[in-house]
Amino acid sequence: MTRTLNQPLGGNTMPRFGGPNTMMRLPMADSAAGLDACFLGIPMDIGTSNRSGTRLGPRQIRDESRMIRPYNMATGAAPFEALQVADIGDVPINTFDLKKSVDIITTHYDEVLSHGVIPLTLGGDHTLTWPILRAIRKRHGPVALIHVDAHSDTNEDMFGETVAHGCPFRRAWEDGCLINDKVFQIGLRGSGYSREEFDWGRRQGWTCIQAEECWHKSLTPLMQEIRAKIGDAPVYLSYDIDSLDPAFAPGTGTVEVGGLTTMQGLEIIRGCAGLNLVGGDLVEVSPPYDPAGNTAVIAANFLFEMLCALPGVPRGR
Amino acid sequence: MTRTLNQPLGGNTMPRFGGPNTMMRLPMADSAAGLDACFLGIPMDIGTSNRSGTRLGPRQIRDESRMIRPYNMATGAAPFEALQVADIGDVPINTFDLKKSVDIITTHYDEVLSHGVIPLTLGGDHTLTWPILRAIRKRHGPVALIHVDAHSDTNEDMFGETVAHGCPFRRAWEDGCLINDKVFQIGLRGSGYSREEFDWGRRQGWTCIQAEECWHKSLTPLMQEIRAKIGDAPVYLSYDIDSLDPAFAPGTGTVEVGGLTTMQGLEIIRGCAGLNLVGGDLVEVSPPYDPAGNTAVIAANFLFEMLCALPGVPRGR
Amino acid sequence: MTRTLNQPLGGNTMPRFGGPNTMMRLPMADSAAGLDACFLGIPMDIGTSNRSGTRLGPRQIRDESRMIRPYNMATGAAPFEALQVADIGDVPINTFDLKKSVDIITTHYDEVLSHGVIPLTLGGDHTLTWPILRAIRKRHGPVALIHVDAHSDTNEDMFGETVAHGCPFRRAWEDGCLINDKVFQIGLRGSGYSREEFDWGRRQGWTCIQAEECWHKSLTPLMQEIRAKIGDAPVYLSYDIDSLDPAFAPGTGTVEVGGLTTMQGLEIIRGCAGLNLVGGDLVEVSPPYDPAGNTAVIAANFLFEMLCALPGVPRGR
Amino acid sequence: MTRTLNQPLGGNTMPRFGGPNTMMRLPMADSAAGLDACFLGIPMDIGTSNRSGTRLGPRQIRDESRMIRPYNMATGAAPFEALQVADIGDVPINTFDLKKSVDIITTHYDEVLSHGVIPLTLGGDHTLTWPILRAIRKRHGPVALIHVDAHSDTNEDMFGETVAHGCPFRRAWEDGCLINDKVFQIGLRGSGYSREEFDWGRRQGWTCIQAEECWHKSLTPLMQEIRAKIGDAPVYLSYDIDSLDPAFAPGTGTVEVGGLTTMQGLEIIRGCAGLNLVGGDLVEVSPPYDPAGNTAVIAANFLFEMLCALPGVPRGR
Amino acid sequence: MTRTLNQPLGGNTMPRFGGPNTMMRLPMADSAAGLDACFLGIPMDIGTSNRSGTRLGPRQIRDESRMIRPYNMATGAAPFEALQVADIGDVPINTFDLKKSVDIITTHYDEVLSHGVIPLTLGGDHTLTWPILRAIRKRHGPVALIHVDAHSDTNEDMFGETVAHGCPFRRAWEDGCLINDKVFQIGLRGSGYSREEFDWGRRQGWTCIQAEECWHKSLTPLMQEIRAKIGDAPVYLSYDIDSLDPAFAPGTGTVEVGGLTTMQGLEIIRGCAGLNLVGGDLVEVSPPYDPAGNTAVIAANFLFEMLCALPGVPRGR
Amino acid sequence: MTRTLNQPLGGNTMPRFGGPNTMMRLPMADSAAGLDACFLGIPMDIGTSNRSGTRLGPRQIRDESRMIRPYNMATGAAPFEALQVADIGDVPINTFDLKKSVDIITTHYDEVLSHGVIPLTLGGDHTLTWPILRAIRKRHGPVALIHVDAHSDTNEDMFGETVAHGCPFRRAWEDGCLINDKVFQIGLRGSGYSREEFDWGRRQGWTCIQAEECWHKSLTPLMQEIRAKIGDAPVYLSYDIDSLDPAFAPGTGTVEVGGLTTMQGLEIIRGCAGLNLVGGDLVEVSPPYDPAGNTAVIAANFLFEMLCALPGVPRGR
Ligand SMILES: [Mn+2]
Ligand SMILES: [Mn+2]
Ligand SMILES: [Mn+2]
Ligand SMILES: [Mn+2]
Ligand SMILES: [Mn+2]
Ligand SMILES: [Mn+2]
Ligand SMILES: [Mn+2]
Ligand SMILES: [Mn+2]
Ligand SMILES: [Mn+2]
Ligand SMILES: [Mn+2]
Ligand SMILES: [Mn+2]
Ligand SMILES: [Mn+2]
Repeated sequence: MTRTLNQPLGGNTMPRFGGPNTMMRLPMADSAAGLDACFLGIPMDIGTSNRSGTRLGPRQIRDESRMIRPYNMATGAAPFEALQVADIGDVPINTFDLKKSVDIITTHYDEVLSHGVIPLTLGGDHTLTWPILRAIRKRHGPVALIHVDAHSDTNEDMFGETVAHGCPFRRAWEDGCLINDKVFQIGLRGSGYSREEFDWGRRQGWTCIQAEECWHKSLTPLMQEIRAKIGDAPVYLSYDIDSLDPAFAPGTGTVEVGGLTTMQGLEIIRGCAGLNLVGGDLVEVSPPYDPAGNTAVIAANFLFEMLCALPGVPRGR
Repeated sequence: MTRTLNQPLGGNTMPRFGGPNTMMRLPMADSAAGLDACFLGIPMDIGTSNRSGTRLGPRQIRDESRMIRPYNMATGAAPFEALQVADIGDVPINTFDLKKSVDIITTHYDEVLSHGVIPLTLGGDHTLTWPILRAIRKRHGPVALIHVDAHSDTNEDMFGETVAHGCPFRRAWEDGCLINDKVFQIGLRGSGYSREEFDWGRRQGWTCIQAEECWHKSLTPLMQEIRAKIGDAPVYLSYDIDSLDPAFAPGTGTVEVGGLTTMQGLEIIRGCAGLNLVGGDLVEVSPPYDPAGNTAVIAANFLFEMLCALPGVPRGR
Repeated sequence: MTRTLNQPLGGNTMPRFGGPNTMMRLPMADSAAGLDACFLGIPMDIGTSNRSGTRLGPRQIRDESRMIRPYNMATGAAPFEALQVADIGDVPINTFDLKKSVDIITTHYDEVLSHGVIPLTLGGDHTLTWPILRAIRKRHGPVALIHVDAHSDTNEDMFGETVAHGCPFRRAWEDGCLINDKVFQIGLRGSGYSREEFDWGRRQGWTCIQAEECWHKSLTPLMQEIRAKIGDAPVYLSYDIDSLDPAFAPGTGTVEVGGLTTMQGLEIIRGCAGLNLVGGDLVEVSPPYDPAGNTAVIAANFLFEMLCALPGVPRGR
Repeated sequence: MTRTLNQPLGGNTMPRFGGPNTMMRLPMADSAAGLDACFLGIPMDIGTSNRSGTRLGPRQIRDESRMIRPYNMATGAAPFEALQVADIGDVPINTFDLKKSVDIITTHYDEVLSHGVIPLTLGGDHTLTWPILRAIRKRHGPVALIHVDAHSDTNEDMFGETVAHGCPFRRAWEDGCLINDKVFQIGLRGSGYSREEFDWGRRQGWTCIQAEECWHKSLTPLMQEIRAKIGDAPVYLSYDIDSLDPAFAPGTGTVEVGGLTTMQGLEIIRGCAGLNLVGGDLVEVSPPYDPAGNTAVIAANFLFEMLCALPGVPRGR
Repeated sequence: MTRTLNQPLGGNTMPRFGGPNTMMRLPMADSAAGLDACFLGIPMDIGTSNRSGTRLGPRQIRDESRMIRPYNMATGAAPFEALQVADIGDVPINTFDLKKSVDIITTHYDEVLSHGVIPLTLGGDHTLTWPILRAIRKRHGPVALIHVDAHSDTNEDMFGETVAHGCPFRRAWEDGCLINDKVFQIGLRGSGYSREEFDWGRRQGWTCIQAEECWHKSLTPLMQEIRAKIGDAPVYLSYDIDSLDPAFAPGTGTVEVGGLTTMQGLEIIRGCAGLNLVGGDLVEVSPPYDPAGNTAVIAANFLFEMLCALPGVPRGR
Repeated sequence: MTRTLNQPLGGNTMPRFGGPNTMMRLPMADSAAGLDACFLGIPMDIGTSNRSGTRLGPRQIRDESRMIRPYNMATGAAPFEALQVADIGDVPINTFDLKKSVDIITTHYDEVLSHGVIPLTLGGDHTLTWPILRAIRKRHGPVALIHVDAHSDTNEDMFGETVAHGCPFRRAWEDGCLINDKVFQIGLRGSGYSREEFDWGRRQGWTCIQAEECWHKSLTPLMQEIRAKIGDAPVYLSYDIDSLDPAFAPGTGTVEVGGLTTMQGLEIIRGCAGLNLVGGDLVEVSPPYDPAGNTAVIAANFLFEMLCALPGVPRGR
């Protein structure tokens, strides 16, 4: 028995600037039933602390995904030869209440995950990773985490609130979502409220790699180490676009200078191939601060690269 | 026997910044079968003569239509109480060959019109109106025309070519698509290659109203006259966004200063209510020149206003 | 006994592009004590429903106020000859919790109003007017209201929430903040969820003037009528910048085409001179959507015009 | 004996987006010898007091003039049927010394005017009009002046300096360049350092028309009056683009809200036809603040309209 | 017998922001007669498949070339001490017909090359390289090719068309324009329609270097190898600006993330010195997507660097 | 006896997008009395030779400094634990006269330096460094200089003027402000008026490091060498933002491609820790050319890094 796999709408069928505004111009699906992987959006910015605008991230990422073709020329990955993939739309968050939105997200992902699909999320501010990880834990138990970000996002609270885009990994830790010796934070930098800000994670057993350790070199060796340490544990990949230097990704709200390059970002995601990825997100894309669209283009490509890195995807040349 | 009418996705169900990128967040349909009216896009800019970019017009108009709610607060029109409406996607033009694209469009509209639907087109450069009118003529015979534009678009040719965005109404005239004493051009202005450029239409019996005649006043009386002259003939409404002054609609390619205001544009389209409209288009929106999105917002609203002006729509308060 | 009145820092003392970023380059004050009028900001956008960004409104309005000189050349008003005015900074809202922010605002204004000052607020999204009006009512009792806006902002709720930028005047009405036969809404337009959306206010006795009634003419006669109807009741002026057509004020989140002109906006505010104004706000300025800065320039000038219209300001030539 | 008149390069010979970047794609000339009228640029912004950037005005105006065709469709004017016109390039001002630049300009215009040509200047900040008027006086004696501007530009000094963009008409008056009862200032508005700021000109016998007097109406009647008062005196037309409301012309440095419309600007310049124009300028275009290019488009068209209004140009239909 | 060599207009003669808009402010020439090298533009975008706008590339590149001084401080090259160089304007392509434009280009270059000049072309979309190479072959026979690009541009067709910006090197290969073992493609990356997309060239004997092979290192050693392989064969250099990462060059239409850096681009072009260059182009600059002008600045400098790398230019320090 | 040290206003007290627009939201001070270090602005652009706009640099740098927290996570520096720091506002330069402004600056810094403070200057164009160095020399004698720039800024004159942004270090050299064997210029590149342009400094004993020498590597070893050569001499650090590649810092006026990366800039400034810094500046930020704000964000962070590198600041982890 065979099934027909969804394919992105090709440029020889409809010009790249036309056609549906779904992720990679894939078919839209009403639910995750029958899918191996899915793209879905969480249009949200009420968890941001500096510049807002990430509510429009999912729309813009989809728009800028229109040029991506089905084969990965760097890795040879061919996701659409093996996986059934669709865009399942957006989570209807409550834009006037952050705490309610968090529960809406968990409930939504409970349903999505019930279909055994691997969700790849288009954000939206980073608050959203906490409720996703809560749902992931119910399905997969605690997971290894690769968290790429300028910020550790492990604040106890912000302005007295425990739900905010600077806190998701503290909350996820509290909820037992993480395997502490398999947590990797990459790209941390900037200024802080104390010298020890990044040490909280280290005290939990996490590996926290500051941006300065990444400068002027390939991150492929680092990923090799990380893969070795994670082994076959289930892994979640959370990619905050502000991990990149603002030269590459200006379109975000809490920019920190001296970040990763896009090339390093690609090395990180491609370096996840071989892991047991159970989900991933790309967050903090803020279109109003992205005048040439570069940030959304990167985000779209990074999400495609996540798809290419999933278990079961044929790759190599 | 009843049918369920499509409704735009509401803001209390999904935040305005989420949801599908269809026109007014209406359902997408694969064909026009069963519809009373439809929105469809023609993503094209290879007929433009100055700045390009209108190929992205349909995407951007759809994006900026996301805030439009179902009732028209000015006219009381309630199109979704009476008409079955959907977004039927884009015409797959050949972006490397303008002449072939023109034929693709006519063929596409032949099929669309076969369902008895009223098409409202998201452009795209103005070249597209000629192939639409060819299809319209096959279905409805020659039509009255309300053409709002800074330019008469009646050039014999441009750079020796007869297919270009400055020529569609000359071609349509040649093809017998128009009822000459029921053709109205509104908003003409700027500079020309001869003093008599706007007189060609006049010699065919057309009414050509220059922008200067419209300044500082309401166009509601003009529309009353036009309605009287057209009577119950089938009418096509072709709205070139460059009819508006660039203060209102900067996002277009061949801007001419001293144009109509958005308010006057609304008066024109609202003034079409009561006519036997058989189709309409909104053309020449060029997103790269629309830094705040205003032009696409106007375009989205003008297309909604066209829908509100269609025969059979309940209105009035 | 005399007091020295604060003056805006002049361009012959410090170039316009230098100096402090306070409103009109006025001195900053720690509290409203001793002031007749004050400017203060509410940096907030978590009550918005479409595009965000108004959190940066106060900063940008202050920045673009740098060119305003002390005399009003149109009306001859000389506010700094009679009133003690300062910028008292921003309200520290909780950006992660809209409902808490509303209470923070009321508490803050209770303190400000205790000094007998007239507050002129730099917004921020329109949600903020409700908590201000609650504080105003405690000090002045119910007030007349001049509300300039594309939207009536009288929704019962949005996405099930009663606190949002589409609801402030419904809440203020419930709280008894308004004198119903002295409420004037100007500029309403666009699309709605029902034909009767603007009639809710009318049923409460409010005067709701749709934008179409304002087109192509001066609003000076309208303001004369409004002044006559209000008499000497205390009045609050709430100015939503989206009342203006987007050609004039693109930098806002819920744009509606076919709005007021800046000239009409000036007529409205200047037409408030002679009324017993007890407070005013200018809301919904969203800098990320304001590429040339026009919207913030208008907002700065409109706030200056509000100051010029306050009781006790010498004017006339 | 006949001469061949220069013609703008046509769009059927070279696409509008190609060809030389001269004004209207006219031939470049090394000097004004043999010309009836000429365009020339003064790339300068060191006389500005708020935002700078007008140094790039001439380049941008030329760029945006590329679409203008030879006939004026509103007035029927055909300047290239009667006048020899060319672009004679830019004045090499000293960008590090404003006072030296002023003398460079006068010397340059002395030479230009020696050829009996009518110069139409692309600015550049308004400081430049004073040195032009000095040269004009040497050639033509004192002149009538039509000065369209948000500002009177008659400051005694700015920051203690007498040469600045707020002072040119005070300096020109001191130098006896003006016929005081034939000076007209149109569009004045905004805020000032004193209530009487605009009265200085009135005391010299000038007619100073504030923007508020112009709102909501045609300025054609005003121009008729002005023409009657000027008679056949030589006239200089100085057009500061900030006379326009920022909705129309955002790209300038000292914006004032509530200004003229482009339509009114066209009425003013077209209303100069019949006068004995001896020169004109279009100043204060600042491209960095002109995101869609509208301001430069207006400037290019207004300069073309000035050309159309010159003595000897055939017009009428 | 001596000749006077053209020099770029210096900044001490005319401010950088004034003067003619020719390449490097060089003199304009009517033909290539008497020149050793020339700059010329092909204003074209109708061969693009995603975002358009390259039709304005030549104008913008010229504009941003205004700051380039005559000596290359990195290499010591002094092109204007040895070569006669001018800007010979634009090719009048037919913007409504891509196939006709291709023939116009070949004919134009036949004439240009007849003067024995080395043409350096300002693009324009990459379709233009095919017709140039056809003319080059007539003059020089088959050539070595250094092609820097994110894309191989060797599609058999696009949307069924053989003339498009994704096909020029397939067409040139068919026409025998290339020496297959001396073809080098640098920077290839992104996604494709098949895993083997870049292998077509390899099968012809071409060297195809993917972007990933270039990351984190100098390309100077690569260029040394390439020079050794090419020897003294005539070489054409085709530089597609999308070879650069979008952080460096956002202003183009088909962006691919993870590209070359500007520094690597400079190494490539400087590494061409010593080769027998017979022509070069810089293509795919799309100004509407270049908000800060960076892309056009790079393009202008890369074209200057090509000039510096030509045979006969004195260099070294 | 203890003193209370000023602290930046924290994000848990006031949202990052609110609060005062001072540098890092520090308290404003009227003078430098009692301070160890101070930030102050020089809003100036009349010394620029290509694009202007740096007059708004100080405002924009302050605005974008709002997110910087008190601890440096890379170096562990804690400036606010040891130094009294404030923002002392702007220098009231004369924007119509560059030569007078230079003297205003020296006089202003004489006063500032009289308090024994270390001034960190927010520019403004590079002309300003000369008058600062004149004041520095009076206080500290000749100083070592670390000058990071694309340009050597050692022109004898520009357009015949000796005061301009291309001349400050020639003037400072003439005035005996520099210790010649302790002058380091880093990042020089681009084109010049002669092959020897960068050799002038070398002839004075300066070390001039061209950008090409910096590519693809860390500059930490270079800084180690520089520290060794400078020893304990007083040092001034002048950082021209155009030293960075335009991909990182587009917002400046005289861009040169192929520059330093932000990471290298951070290495340079962090590499100054341990030196006897007596002052520093960050110049040439031009907000109109900085569409996403990146350049001002870098500038704000680099000024914070300068503060972190000052003598007496505790650091290390
Ligand atoms: Mn994060
Ligand atoms: Mn982050
Ligand atoms: Mn048209
Ligand atoms: Mn048109
Ligand atoms: Mn509102
Ligand atoms: Mn509103
Ligand atoms: Mn002026
Ligand atoms: Mn002015
Ligand atoms: Mn290519
Ligand atoms: Mn390419
Ligand atoms: Mn410098
Ligand atoms: Mn520099």
